[in-house]
Amino acid sequence: MNLLLLEEADFIAPDRVRVEGRRGRQLREVIRLQPGESCKAGLLNGLVGEAELLSSEGEVQILSPHLHSPPPPPLDVMLVAALPRPKSFRKVLHAGASMGVKKFYFIASWKVEKSYWQSPFITPEAVAEELRLALEQSGDTVLPLVEFRNRFKPFVEDELPGVCKGGVLLAGHPGAVAKVPAGEARRQRVMLAVGPEGGFTPYETELLAAAGARLVSLGPRILRTEFAVAALLAQLGGA
Amino acid sequence: MNLLLLEEADFIAPDRVRVEGRRGRQLREVIRLQPGESCKAGLLNGLVGEAELLSSEGEVQILSPHLHSPPPPPLDVMLVAALPRPKSFRKVLHAGASMGVKKFYFIASWKVEKSYWQSPFITPEAVAEELRLALEQSGDTVLPLVEFRNRFKPFVEDELPGVCKGGVLLAGHPGAVAKVPAGEARRQRVMLAVGPEGGFTPYETELLAAAGARLVSLGPRILRTEFAVAALLAQLGGA
Repeated sequence: MNLLLLEEADFIAPDRVRVEGRRGRQLREVIRLQPGESCKAGLLNGLVGEAELLSSEGEVQILSPHLHSPPPPPLDVMLVAALPRPKSFRKVLHAGASMGVKKFYFIASWKVEKSYWQSPFITPEAVAEELRLALEQSGDTVLPLVEFRNRFKPFVEDELPGVCKGGVLLAGHPGAVAKVPAGEARRQRVMLAVGPEGGFTPYETELLAAAGARLVSLGPRILRTEFAVAALLAQLGGA
Repeated sequence: MNLLLLEEADFIAPDRVRVEGRRGRQLREVIRLQPGESCKAGLLNGLVGEAELLSSEGEVQILSPHLHSPPPPPLDVMLVAALPRPKSFRKVLHAGASMGVKKFYFIASWKVEKSYWQSPFITPEAVAEELRLALEQSGDTVLPLVEFRNRFKPFVEDELPGVCKGGVLLAGHPGAVAKVPAGEARRQRVMLAVGPEGGFTPYETELLAAAGARLVSLGPRILRTEFAVAALLAQLGGA
């Protein structure tokens, strides 16, 4: 936890917050914050700054926050990912959110197993929890939006072209000849589509191309989805 | 498993291999290879190509390999990482190895807890197993070298300058002003030093700078070590 993420509900006075549960235990047991010491803090969808620990009793921590600066700028990439298998889903979500992605679409694809849509990790509560962890990790406060689309064709044909307006659509595809354009997300909004393990099918690739996608590749190596996402985002956002 | 990684010991004839255990089960249960079908294969530290399944009995698979091409080129980056906590260690090793790093140094640092050095994940057997998984994932055959150095100062002062000869030493450091030089590993060999969660101490940063390190940053966000490594390597190796 590199940032204590506060919500309006934590405020017990205009300049006092009360934190318990997971966050309270982390302050006490991991960060070992002592009264008088400060940690980095931020308000959900708001400013960042510091919070000074006033008192600690068990897992209940009372702090005085002083929030004054904007959170780090977002990465201008929307991530469209074939829904990964459940354990991988959390890692992909974490990688993207901690690197500054503010909008995710998790979509169906031929190689996405039906059972993935029943995973407890994709419930709104589980998604919100993982997003909070990613914000706390990266020092951000702005909660990303996460959408699920369980039909590939209607999404790519009817919805994606509108979503992509004013930006460029790139589809990561092992075997594509074009490389990822370094720093592209600094020049314009990027919609980045990432396939399932095993890649999009030729039919899906055709539909993506018809929706305007340029196929790009990270090179000859095939990476775990979460590392492919981290690598792609780093190249798109890099200098 | 995107590549069946073979060893000399698997050969039962010049053109026949016998695979069982984890690899045999994966061929049968995950890849569901049928007799007459082929999968990508490679020989440890050797060529890549295909292997055709001849027969399958339980987890014992007999295949005919045809290996003809070089593995993907390595990434010209040596990774020097403060030893991460055990679960993170495996992920960092996997990220680096699957992205083409061929030499790792895991080193001590003030914020590396002593207990990490007793982790079962850093035994030679556990390291070799994780490296094989990374090669199978990325389609590579060349086993990286992994070294451990449990004293920071002697390593950085006495060993690192020699290791860095003919290349550039970059140290990832949150708060550094300089950005990661995109594509640097395509121009020259890079030694990339990555600190522990919480970063190198000022004293350690000074010693690194004295050894010739340029401090570079990924930006204002703090990433989990494995994603920081993936992001740094992607930027260094990118176009």
